[in-house]
Amino acid sequence: MNFKSDNTATAAAEILASLTAVNESPASAYGDDPWSRKLDETFSALFERDVRVFTVASGTAANAIALASVVPPWGAILCHREAHIECDECGAPEFFSGGAKLVLMDGERAKVTPETLKQAIGRNARGIHSVQPAALSISQTTERGAIYRPDEIAALGGIARASGLAFHMDGARFANAVAALGCAPADMTWRAGVELLSFGATKNGALAAEAIVVFDLARAEEVERRRKRGGHLFCKGRYPAAQLLAYLEGGLWLRLAARANGLAARLAEAAGAHLSVPAESNQVFIKPGVEALARLRAAGAEFYDWGADGSGEARLVVSWNQSEADVAQMCALLGSLR
Amino acid sequence: MNFKSDNTATAAAEILASLTAVNESPASAYGDDPWSRKLDETFSALFERDVRVFTVASGTAANAIALASVVPPWGAILCHREAHIECDECGAPEFFSGGAKLVLMDGERAKVTPETLKQAIGRNARGIHSVQPAALSISQTTERGAIYRPDEIAALGGIARASGLAFHMDGARFANAVAALGCAPADMTWRAGVELLSFGATKNGALAAEAIVVFDLARAEEVERRRKRGGHLFCKGRYPAAQLLAYLEGGLWLRLAARANGLAARLAEAAGAHLSVPAESNQVFIKPGVEALARLRAAGAEFYDWGADGSGEARLVVSWNQSEADVAQMCALLGSLR
Amino acid sequence: MNFKSDNTATAAAEILASLTAVNESPASAYGDDPWSRKLDETFSALFERDVRVFTVASGTAANAIALASVVPPWGAILCHREAHIECDECGAPEFFSGGAKLVLMDGERAKVTPETLKQAIGRNARGIHSVQPAALSISQTTERGAIYRPDEIAALGGIARASGLAFHMDGARFANAVAALGCAPADMTWRAGVELLSFGATKNGALAAEAIVVFDLARAEEVERRRKRGGHLFCKGRYPAAQLLAYLEGGLWLRLAARANGLAARLAEAAGAHLSVPAESNQVFIKPGVEALARLRAAGAEFYDWGADGSGEARLVVSWNQSEADVAQMCALLGSLR
Amino acid sequence: MNFKSDNTATAAAEILASLTAVNESPASAYGDDPWSRKLDETFSALFERDVRVFTVASGTAANAIALASVVPPWGAILCHREAHIECDECGAPEFFSGGAKLVLMDGERAKVTPETLKQAIGRNARGIHSVQPAALSISQTTERGAIYRPDEIAALGGIARASGLAFHMDGARFANAVAALGCAPADMTWRAGVELLSFGATKNGALAAEAIVVFDLARAEEVERRRKRGGHLFCKGRYPAAQLLAYLEGGLWLRLAARANGLAARLAEAAGAHLSVPAESNQVFIKPGVEALARLRAAGAEFYDWGADGSGEARLVVSWNQSEADVAQMCALLGSLR
Repeated sequence: MNFKSDNTATAAAEILASLTAVNESPASAYGDDPWSRKLDETFSALFERDVRVFTVASGTAANAIALASVVPPWGAILCHREAHIECDECGAPEFFSGGAKLVLMDGERAKVTPETLKQAIGRNARGIHSVQPAALSISQTTERGAIYRPDEIAALGGIARASGLAFHMDGARFANAVAALGCAPADMTWRAGVELLSFGATKNGALAAEAIVVFDLARAEEVERRRKRGGHLFCKGRYPAAQLLAYLEGGLWLRLAARANGLAARLAEAAGAHLSVPAESNQVFIKPGVEALARLRAAGAEFYDWGADGSGEARLVVSWNQSEADVAQMCALLGSLR
Repeated sequence: MNFKSDNTATAAAEILASLTAVNESPASAYGDDPWSRKLDETFSALFERDVRVFTVASGTAANAIALASVVPPWGAILCHREAHIECDECGAPEFFSGGAKLVLMDGERAKVTPETLKQAIGRNARGIHSVQPAALSISQTTERGAIYRPDEIAALGGIARASGLAFHMDGARFANAVAALGCAPADMTWRAGVELLSFGATKNGALAAEAIVVFDLARAEEVERRRKRGGHLFCKGRYPAAQLLAYLEGGLWLRLAARANGLAARLAEAAGAHLSVPAESNQVFIKPGVEALARLRAAGAEFYDWGADGSGEARLVVSWNQSEADVAQMCALLGSLR
Repeated sequence: MNFKSDNTATAAAEILASLTAVNESPASAYGDDPWSRKLDETFSALFERDVRVFTVASGTAANAIALASVVPPWGAILCHREAHIECDECGAPEFFSGGAKLVLMDGERAKVTPETLKQAIGRNARGIHSVQPAALSISQTTERGAIYRPDEIAALGGIARASGLAFHMDGARFANAVAALGCAPADMTWRAGVELLSFGATKNGALAAEAIVVFDLARAEEVERRRKRGGHLFCKGRYPAAQLLAYLEGGLWLRLAARANGLAARLAEAAGAHLSVPAESNQVFIKPGVEALARLRAAGAEFYDWGADGSGEARLVVSWNQSEADVAQMCALLGSLR
Repeated sequence: MNFKSDNTATAAAEILASLTAVNESPASAYGDDPWSRKLDETFSALFERDVRVFTVASGTAANAIALASVVPPWGAILCHREAHIECDECGAPEFFSGGAKLVLMDGERAKVTPETLKQAIGRNARGIHSVQPAALSISQTTERGAIYRPDEIAALGGIARASGLAFHMDGARFANAVAALGCAPADMTWRAGVELLSFGATKNGALAAEAIVVFDLARAEEVERRRKRGGHLFCKGRYPAAQLLAYLEGGLWLRLAARANGLAARLAEAAGAHLSVPAESNQVFIKPGVEALARLRAAGAEFYDWGADGSGEARLVVSWNQSEADVAQMCALLGSLR
């Protein structure tokens, strides 16, 4: 029963197979191959708009390169205090941007609200002595498994635009959000003001396939050059491209995400009152106390503690191919805590 | 007849198969999996010494992260004027190092000699107003297909050590050099003073597998943290690890490289007097003139021009799985030029 | 009645005169002149230890260069939430360090305590995904005019050393602290574990004279090279050197600071219950409410609001040459608020 | 007889006096004072156009901040091989720009020609793998004392504009060029396409007064923020401002420069055939051989060797206040070599 993270999961058979499929004959390097070129087309169709797609090796790279391409070194990136870019990237955004500063906002379920955003913008607009708000970055789903509705994103997007901020979305679990809401990817991104999207596939069935989706084509050159300079232009571009093409083919990405979301909902129901935040996607947060968590572990469950030391809270992440048996057993364990 | 680059080749079946082999069950993320751990062990055996191995997405990343981990921002990286780090990485070494400067040396066949190295060190040791020589970087094989013998490397290594320079080797085609010389990898690296090696597998049969091999373990933390910060710590570390393990398994890497070297030797022989530099590995440089090159292309050969515009020189690169037919046909074409 | 900041004050006559005194004949450039050399000697005597002194153009430069010389790009600088390096330097520490992150601590009167320091170190020691605590930076006097006693500094220094953190002090108002406590500069710095000091003179009577004092000589080269690279190696080094020599000559620096401290104490006494924090140096914080502040301004007082908008708090800074009349008038005004 | 550099000279009395003149009463900090504001006005009049002026602590800072404000990290700065930004700034341009690359051009008397510029642009426009030409930087006067005529500058400016390069001039000795040519500063700068000028006063009579003159006002914010972040926003802005105002007042700057130029011309005449390049400003290069240089030194002359070790070449720099006696004695010595 491994609920540590969706990044421990294997790759989906369809995606693995795609690597073999593109391995027949030589192809030009550095993205000048048929599959890499098809990426732009496929994503443009998906997003109902002409977009450019740049594959990179990790979500950290996607976030940092995307942000660096729109934030000057003297800029501030406004994000939630629990954001991946703040907590888990060892300063990659600062590195790629030449030393921009992350300005942190509070908010339930790791969500940014219009109010906190406005306050943060106001607090940091202090003239020459202070970094200047230059970008807003939100995570969809959030680090607490919450999901922004398109209208919520649009509200943030409106404030960002009015204040001259670029708008970036960390979509490491973008599929889980789209699957949960059933809305068009366009509604959740550029129609709501998002200019750059880190589109993740690795957690949801790929081997290593992350991409920066650029909605404003004027931004593309900056992204492309910073990617190269960061060592993220793959020599044999067809392999990451093939993964993403297989991921989107026939809606695979949404099937996998929907399955994970659905199993997570069962865990959430079983957790009942121990649920610490509502479960909206494939992450479930429970707070049954330190002793109860120890009992779960003793019974074979693997997961990470969450929040402050000794808080008695934990995170359970359901992967795209989590076994039904795992989930059933975990549900029983959670039920026994009630 | 595509002789543009070995990076256009497909991946070897053994390496592709390794991805499936490690795809059975969940594994911890970020390199804490059995295959990633086995990497250190396998490379330590290969190099007859305790080493640390860090996989990254590209040779550019390997070079830039390795160099940044040993060069202060106010340092100079001494390298050949035609070095990949100077010509083909869009400033990645400068980016990762925080603005170090590449100081260029001349030399036949893209090789650095003890004399040019000493001169470069002397020219750049000018007190507070100048960047300070901090590292030597050489390519094995060189950008002109030449190979440094172990004693040549040791001579450079001795000068580097005496001047306090770190010593890095760009081994994008390391396999071709080892296969050609038949020497121990250790003799070509740490025994000759090399402290950091960019070990490439992508051009020689992998999908995307490049690694930084750290011989001086005290350097490992810097490399590890700069890799993370550069977005090159793979979430699912088993996939790049599996590629490298399959690459080394049973000497596959040397078989593939030896084959490419051998076919290249046939091209060189066919080129005869048109050979512009001796062919020592899988790259062949010919200089039959502009018109002759046009005839080769008209006959179906694909390759890149080399050197200054209109020099009439070209580079032919043989891949690990170049067809015999390609080579035979190209030999005939080259023969017809004589 | 201008109490906006001590950086609005003119330069002291002795310091201005020193510029003329060194203007007699040519002198070698870039710090190789008699006065620059005498700086090391003079500061070594002052600090009872062999130190190196590097002049720079601003306190921001002193802080950022000092910190960059001891913090890797993947490091965290632990400081108070109100620290100058966080609030007022437009990201200079991030810039000079190559993107290190400032990790913020709370604490009354802008002071760091052993408890908050230990917590911050614990929170940020999270393995490869997080920046690593690398330096502690405190301000003496603090941004709220408070002063650390030598034993308080030593307690922080002990924790820093035990955790492998470098220890930096922003001494933009170092003179005010030494004058107030009457202790040896050594007790407040290296004897308490401080390794790098930003020594400010500009606010206390110089034209532009800030310096980095390096207690651990092994750190000196990094500071020297980063200063050059930052454009802070003065061509004609004698002029900043002369200012600092005159500043220290005969205890001028302490006389000027003591005067400012003393006048500030009178303001504090007059403010009585409106004092929002105890006045320990030349900064006085009052919180008489928004309307009262408006009345003070209407009566001719100039000062900055402090804290959140509409908090009704303000900061009064007394300069080294503030007139007695200003202070007397302001005392009367403050008295009228009670 | 010190002819080492004009940066060993003292400050002019008028400029020193200006510091006292602005020291009467408090003034707002950070450039919000009457003298700082007057700078923009004065320089706008001088350059016959609306400009913005930003004082910094050194010529290195002026060059690096100016270039960083117009060059992306993935850009190339094209300059002469002997340029100050390449040889004497310890990598400051690379640091401030986030790792841009300096691409070097050859040319007599350290001058860039239209031909070398076109070639350099052509060589470095190689797609994604190469840094992209982003700025041209020339020195006026050059590091070999040569002067670009306005039409020469305009020719370079035309090429720069056509290729999308920003155009920067390092004017550490701008006064010597203007004094020598007698042309309008506007003709030598923005009318010829220069967008950013490093305007030096320190070598020609100031204590420490360097400035970035921004002709394209849209560039001003980038310069201003990067200056702050580099620690070059002076707290008490009136002192550098006062120096520059006195420098320009009544044409002082041109009188001082003309005097130095004139004395240098006498040295050049005395050197006769030993002159290694024509003397156009206040730098004189002679090549009488190693032994002759030793004799000059034995007779009391101080100067730097130039060029490669043992070349027998030397540089003599005449300062604004070099004594007539020095020059007469040196002329006699030079005459004795013929």
